[in-house]
Amino acid sequence: MYFRSDNQTGASDRVMETLAMANRGTTPGYGDDEWSTRAVDMLKETFGCDLEAFFVLTGTAANSLALSCLVDPWHSILCHAKAHILRDESTAPEFYTGGARLVPISGGDGKLEVRHLEHYFRITEVHAPHNSLAKALSITQAAENGLVYSAGEVASLCEAAHGRGLSVHMDGARFANAVAALGCMPADISWKAGVDVLCLGATKNGGLAAEAVIFFRKGSAEEFSHRRKRGGHLLSKGRLFGAQFLGWLQDGHWLELAGHANGQAARLFSALTSIPGIRLAWPVQANELFVILPVRLAERLLSAGAEFYGWDRGSLPADTTLAADETLIRLVTSFATSDENVDRFCAKAKDLAT
Amino acid sequence: MYFRSDNQTGASDRVMETLAMANRGTTPGYGDDEWSTRAVDMLKETFGCDLEAFFVLTGTAANSLALSCLVDPWHSILCHAKAHILRDESTAPEFYTGGARLVPISGGDGKLEVRHLEHYFRITEVHAPHNSLAKALSITQAAENGLVYSAGEVASLCEAAHGRGLSVHMDGARFANAVAALGCMPADISWKAGVDVLCLGATKNGGLAAEAVIFFRKGSAEEFSHRRKRGGHLLSKGRLFGAQFLGWLQDGHWLELAGHANGQAARLFSALTSIPGIRLAWPVQANELFVILPVRLAERLLSAGAEFYGWDRGSLPADTTLAADETLIRLVTSFATSDENVDRFCAKAKDLAT
Amino acid sequence: MYFRSDNQTGASDRVMETLAMANRGTTPGYGDDEWSTRAVDMLKETFGCDLEAFFVLTGTAANSLALSCLVDPWHSILCHAKAHILRDESTAPEFYTGGARLVPISGGDGKLEVRHLEHYFRITEVHAPHNSLAKALSITQAAENGLVYSAGEVASLCEAAHGRGLSVHMDGARFANAVAALGCMPADISWKAGVDVLCLGATKNGGLAAEAVIFFRKGSAEEFSHRRKRGGHLLSKGRLFGAQFLGWLQDGHWLELAGHANGQAARLFSALTSIPGIRLAWPVQANELFVILPVRLAERLLSAGAEFYGWDRGSLPADTTLAADETLIRLVTSFATSDENVDRFCAKAKDLAT
Amino acid sequence: MYFRSDNQTGASDRVMETLAMANRGTTPGYGDDEWSTRAVDMLKETFGCDLEAFFVLTGTAANSLALSCLVDPWHSILCHAKAHILRDESTAPEFYTGGARLVPISGGDGKLEVRHLEHYFRITEVHAPHNSLAKALSITQAAENGLVYSAGEVASLCEAAHGRGLSVHMDGARFANAVAALGCMPADISWKAGVDVLCLGATKNGGLAAEAVIFFRKGSAEEFSHRRKRGGHLLSKGRLFGAQFLGWLQDGHWLELAGHANGQAARLFSALTSIPGIRLAWPVQANELFVILPVRLAERLLSAGAEFYGWDRGSLPADTTLAADETLIRLVTSFATSDENVDRFCAKAKDLAT
Repeated sequence: MYFRSDNQTGASDRVMETLAMANRGTTPGYGDDEWSTRAVDMLKETFGCDLEAFFVLTGTAANSLALSCLVDPWHSILCHAKAHILRDESTAPEFYTGGARLVPISGGDGKLEVRHLEHYFRITEVHAPHNSLAKALSITQAAENGLVYSAGEVASLCEAAHGRGLSVHMDGARFANAVAALGCMPADISWKAGVDVLCLGATKNGGLAAEAVIFFRKGSAEEFSHRRKRGGHLLSKGRLFGAQFLGWLQDGHWLELAGHANGQAARLFSALTSIPGIRLAWPVQANELFVILPVRLAERLLSAGAEFYGWDRGSLPADTTLAADETLIRLVTSFATSDENVDRFCAKAKDLAT
Repeated sequence: MYFRSDNQTGASDRVMETLAMANRGTTPGYGDDEWSTRAVDMLKETFGCDLEAFFVLTGTAANSLALSCLVDPWHSILCHAKAHILRDESTAPEFYTGGARLVPISGGDGKLEVRHLEHYFRITEVHAPHNSLAKALSITQAAENGLVYSAGEVASLCEAAHGRGLSVHMDGARFANAVAALGCMPADISWKAGVDVLCLGATKNGGLAAEAVIFFRKGSAEEFSHRRKRGGHLLSKGRLFGAQFLGWLQDGHWLELAGHANGQAARLFSALTSIPGIRLAWPVQANELFVILPVRLAERLLSAGAEFYGWDRGSLPADTTLAADETLIRLVTSFATSDENVDRFCAKAKDLAT
Repeated sequence: MYFRSDNQTGASDRVMETLAMANRGTTPGYGDDEWSTRAVDMLKETFGCDLEAFFVLTGTAANSLALSCLVDPWHSILCHAKAHILRDESTAPEFYTGGARLVPISGGDGKLEVRHLEHYFRITEVHAPHNSLAKALSITQAAENGLVYSAGEVASLCEAAHGRGLSVHMDGARFANAVAALGCMPADISWKAGVDVLCLGATKNGGLAAEAVIFFRKGSAEEFSHRRKRGGHLLSKGRLFGAQFLGWLQDGHWLELAGHANGQAARLFSALTSIPGIRLAWPVQANELFVILPVRLAERLLSAGAEFYGWDRGSLPADTTLAADETLIRLVTSFATSDENVDRFCAKAKDLAT
Repeated sequence: MYFRSDNQTGASDRVMETLAMANRGTTPGYGDDEWSTRAVDMLKETFGCDLEAFFVLTGTAANSLALSCLVDPWHSILCHAKAHILRDESTAPEFYTGGARLVPISGGDGKLEVRHLEHYFRITEVHAPHNSLAKALSITQAAENGLVYSAGEVASLCEAAHGRGLSVHMDGARFANAVAALGCMPADISWKAGVDVLCLGATKNGGLAAEAVIFFRKGSAEEFSHRRKRGGHLLSKGRLFGAQFLGWLQDGHWLELAGHANGQAARLFSALTSIPGIRLAWPVQANELFVILPVRLAERLLSAGAEFYGWDRGSLPADTTLAADETLIRLVTSFATSDENVDRFCAKAKDLAT
């Protein structure tokens, strides 16, 4: 009954097999190998466009390096109040950008909306060089509360951002889950909607440790390659990344994995909502559930061996309040979550709730 | 009718005379001169305690260098949503701290209160090394809206901060105005109330370009001296700063200047409040007035030669709203503001208001 | 006939198998897993002492992060004129240290010697805060020219460094080769000789991508963990590193691999030196050979399918000069270099030399 | 008998008078005042060209900010082994450039020469992104050993640098002395010779604390203004700088001051060379003398009240050695050095030498 995170499961068999295959023999180093080349080609095919892509080890590195190519150190980056880049990556964005500033423009709940951008610009006068000018917007897909931005929503945000001279970065740690949820083409919620740079995460969804930074606007390659090297993220045995991405993308494997994770979240959702005393803070669209339940029930579930994290109440919808005896928890499903795992948890919850 | 800012007037005669005196002859460089030594001694006398003080050119340098001694690059600094360090100093704090983060914990109005700190700590979980830990609190005295923190208010904030392991920095660009307004001892609202580092500004109140960074907790001297040098703020002819501070502090000159500026603000206040259609957003405690008045009146005053800035409505008290035909302006008085200047402006306002 | 580098071969079978094993099931993330714990325990056993160890992806990250814990941004780091940290890691050390300075104290040839340190201190006056103070010495083991520092040489350098207040960092990208060459205990050329921080590289010698930063002086753990996170090097699936190091260290596997590589270098050496017109720039002690040979022979070997790099003449011994028709190349052997590979190359060289 | 440095004398009367004049009344802040505008106009007139100029407080700030506009953080800056930016400004260049590297390309003696550049490029291969690419050359005028680069020498260096894609920065802390020494136009040894950015120092030659960063290639204004603000070098009472430069430049005052300093150096030179046992390390071209004399004489002079610094033997010409009983000292003259001062010193030296 493991629902803590989707980053604590190993890689999928297929990814591991590709890695094992790629391990044989000698190849040129530093990403000039055949596996990396094929992985980039596969990304081009997947997104249906030309692009520049770079592989790195972690989401924090991917996001921070990507942002450092979009802003100067005296600029600001607008984001959601609960954005991962703001809350969970220490001050890595400041480190890589040389001291640019993250500015939360929303409340703690929901998704970013165009009105948040408009409000920010309405209340923010910028007189150079005294005030920091916003030059980038960062969107997380799927969002921190498990919701998914539709293609239209992404497009509206990008349009509003571009209209103000901002580039758009997408933190796609769960991009695969969003694509699977929407049943759309990867292009629809990325470059076609106006995203300039996408950090596409494989790690949470079947990779071992691999993130791709994808520039849809060409021309950042040289700068990025210097920044990656300085950050110590240029791998000598670059095929480690290439092979992971190749195995992950081929034959729609990545979307299969994400579809499975989303499906298990839906399975949890339908079983849990029928249990009295349990309600969901947000609709379930991808692979995360934010569940409001009695404190006692949560404690009993943990005692019974269920594994999940309590969650920050600041992320509840504005009009939702917890009763004194309620708490908020997060459940995450992954490509490896089994039916049996879900069913046992739900049965246990039903049992303990009464 | 000049009320734009207190940083656009030259130095007081006395400060200029001391500077001229200090200019003669040769002295050791880099602050090892007699003028600088005497200025530091005068600071010790003024604050009634031992201390370490360093002189720099600007408030931005003073604040950023001071903060860089209080936090590591992965820490956060809590401040007011309208704090000068957050709004008006580009990303200098990030530059000097190596990428630490400024976190606004209040709304845009009023002063910082203990409840803001408490709220922040209630909603903010910190798991190292993922989340950035708050290690400093910054208070502006007098505050951005012209209010003055009482000794008790400073003490409460410092106690709350220290209780959480935070150091306290005070941006004292208008510290002199606050002391003059409260009629207290400088120590009462600084080290006795718990402030760890004070940036004492002379520039806005009779200096030419001189700020003192004062550490009440000893032991930061060596680190500060390296940081100042790296920032290019170690002056070879250090007496430039020493002489300014000496002239400024001697015989209570600094408080006389600040008292004059405060008095002129009070004079403006009493004259303006008797004019129909004009109201004050905040009580007038130091040398800044935030005035709500008809748009048409503001325009007429500008046309008549008055000089002032329109101001950010986000700093209005939460329960104050502007009518459609109203606007918000800021008036600042200085040590050089004459009675005649004030009276002409008020007469003109009265005249144009009808 | 592949002798380009030891970082362009995959991982050893054993390392890959351990990785595959570790991939199964869920574990706590971020290095709190059993594999990482066991790997650190194995390091303690290997070095025969208590220590703090952190895993990262690349040598550049390991070296830069390690150095950032030894110096402040206003300090200098002394190193060999051809040190990898100075020549081949872009400005990563400056990035991670916040702008500290690398200072080459030797000529381009040979190894670092105590006299280089002594000469540096003799010609360098430091007046704070104007001049940058040296606070760390960096040694590469095995050295950039393939030589190995004996335990006594390391101890002498460390003693000279410590006597001047410098910490000692060892870039151990080929530390395994050095241990195998000397037939000593790992402790003998690290902490027992006075090394404070060792970057132990597995990547070049049988790992996939794994370096351990090992602090023999305890107390840097918290700072390092923040710096690693900010650099984007904290892996969620931390067992990736743990498993590699475990598989690599167990049963002396790492020294077997290094011993093989060294042996193949010796095999190359004895065959090549019997060929007229070929001489070695430096004795062969680990797994690198620096070979002086006729330009025409080098070209013919490349045409015949041999793979190696031409090398920087600045690293030749001071008393060695190249004739007009001579060139310098580097040959590197690895754990995967076969007898057949070596013998074919030597036969070809013999053949083409005549 | 004060010959320690030219930065320990106050400002010239004329500069102080201009400052006092500028101090009156209110002006726009942050350099938008009339004094600053006039000073920039005067710079354009002085250099006979259009340019962008910014004023800052110190040479360290000027040099570091200027360099930060020429290179990215992964680049290198070539300079003389004794360059002030390398030796005497802590790691300020690294701080402002975000971690670019200073690379000394000469020995410790003499001036930079084209052959130093050529040698550097001959021995330095750059493979991106592993190695740091040189993108700027820094020249000090007058040089650290008191020599002056002729217009032809500057032009040759600039041509060699530009040919390799490097920008040229000139540290002109004693640029006035160089112009006075050469009797040339300021343009001849700056933009006409190919210098891209000149840091023109007034501080050492009659200013109080004022340096101008002058861009002859337009287009860096916006970036510089952000960098200056972030460094805390944007002065609210900007006229402090404007007035100093205006007073300094008007009517050739700056060259008069520099000419006087140079003249006193020449006066010292002719008197000292007639004293047995005294010899000069370098010809005297500007306002610095590097004097080799018996240790005992140096000690006696200090005892007799003379003030000067001992100097680094590493800056001696390659073919000059000190006898065991000899030492090297530096004498610096300034705009304020009187005939009487010089004559007393020389008489004393003559007297004590025998």
